[in-house]
This record gives sequence, C-alpha cells and structure tokens, in this order.
Amino acid sequence: MQPIGYVRSPYKVAQDIPKGLGAKHEAEGLLDVRPEFEAGLTDIEGFSHLFVIWAFDRSEGFNLLGTPPSDDRPHGVFATRSPRRPNPIGLTVVELMSREGAALRVRGIDMLDGTPILDIKPYLSSVPAGRLRRGWLAEAEARTGPKP
Amino acid sequence: MQPIGYVRSPYKVAQDIPKGLGAKHEAEGLLDVRPEFEAGLTDIEGFSHLFVIWAFDRSEGFNLLGTPPSDDRPHGVFATRSPRRPNPIGLTVVELMSREGAALRVRGIDMLDGTPILDIKPYLSSVPAGRLRRGWLAEAEARTGPKP
Repeated sequence: MQPIGYVRSPYKVAQDIPKGLGAKHEAEGLLDVRPEFEAGLTDIEGFSHLFVIWAFDRSEGFNLLGTPPSDDRPHGVFATRSPRRPNPIGLTVVELMSREGAALRVRGIDMLDGTPILDIKPYLSSVPAGRLRRGWLAEAEARTGPKP
Repeated sequence: MQPIGYVRSPYKVAQDIPKGLGAKHEAEGLLDVRPEFEAGLTDIEGFSHLFVIWAFDRSEGFNLLGTPPSDDRPHGVFATRSPRRPNPIGLTVVELMSREGAALRVRGIDMLDGTPILDIKPYLSSVPAGRLRRGWLAEAEARTGPKP
C-alpha cells in the first residue's frame, strides 16, 4: 500500500474533529493527489460524491470492543468507526466541489490534516433511507432525544 | 494489513460476476470473519447494511485510464471500480441478512470466493438520491437507453 495522496484538512489534532451524536461533518478540505496519479482522476468531476479510503496513520493497535463518542455503551469495532481497528483503514463519503489539476476540493472531511489517501472511488448509488436500520446508533439517539 | 476474514461467494472466477450497465448484485454469500476477531462483530446485527473493504487479491498492477464494462469510453481509475488500482482495495455495500457466530450472511456480494476482507464498517447514512450526480455512468446509461 502506498499513499496516492494526502488530505488537507482544517483538523490538526483528533480533538478538533466533531464527534458524538449529531456531529456534523461539513468541513471543506483538499484531496491532494500525487501528480503521477493525476490521470486517474479523469472524468471524476462528473460525480457529486466520492468514497475516500484512507489510513488512520496516527492510530496504533486495536480494540475489538470500545465505547464510541456517540454512546455510553461498548460495541464491536466492526459496528463502529473507531480508529483502533485490526486494519487501520478509514472510509469517508465526501461531496466533490471542484477539481484543480490533481487537487479535489471536497466537503465532509473528517480526517486529520496530512492523512494518507489509499483510494478514491465514485459514489454510484445510495441505499434508500427507508431501508436502513442503524442499530445501536439509532438506539443511542432515541435515548438522548432527537438529533439537533 | 492482514485479512480479518474471507468472502464465501458463488463467484469462482471474474467472468462469473455480473458486469456492465444494469448489472445487479443480488448474490448471497458469507463474510467469514476469523474467530479471533469475532468479538469485533458485537452489535453488528442491528445494522441493515455494511461496508466491506477488501483486497483485489487476484489483480496485478494498475492502469490510470481504462474502459469499464459499463461504457465504451475510457475513464480515470478513481472514477471507476476497476480492479487495476494503485492500491488494490475494493469496497462493496452489502445487506446483512443474519449472523451466525463469526459468519455474516449477506446479500449484494460482487467479490470472488476467497477474497480477503480487510475491514467491515456500519453503513450509517445515505446521500439522498436526488443529490447524486453519477457522471459518465449516467451518460452511458442515457446513450444506451433506460436501465433494465
């Protein structure tokens, strides 16, 4: 695995990133793709949303059970977005605002500045909201009242 | 990176996997998680859909430009789901049908049998369909008529 580029983010340390129930990820930033991969971005402008697969490069080790910021109860790591995972891979859906050469300006960043990007893929279709069940997260929201 | 488990799929070779415009991914299969990671699945049953991050273990090398099965024109690799990527990482959204211990029965498999799984994450929210733009894929669909 080699970084195809790096995230330019307003978040310099983990404490800067909004967390917990109702946290909004509306920060703008750049996906700064390495020049040698720029041709791989051809026609990406046509997509409104992208999947970004990235490395939790400032996380070490993993916990199979952990209590996420959005709940006061522990859950399995594969049922959460915890950074402490067996393979430290992150996944974020971002909205593509514009492209300038090998740099993609995006909204919805929740990564730290300098995060290595492993892959970018087009977001092609959504699961209809009415078909989604959101497990412990929906329960935690129900216990603490409606989302802000 | 180490596999946290393996996909059990009806697809034994790449030619078995439905491809091209209108291809449906409704195959059922198993995400067979290694026993030592089973605790990481705690509470996953509450989620209707999961992201599966996996390795294209039977793909070698990459092409920055390629013509996908759903079009007759080339596009950048980061605007397609091509297996020939700088980092050979795949991403699939599956519907979780049931769990039996460390095995998750899922629908929507488009991986080959034996594919190494790198991570599993809960699918928490969708981009509303009305806000999605699907670039070259929508154009290819428009050229060839409505989806079957």
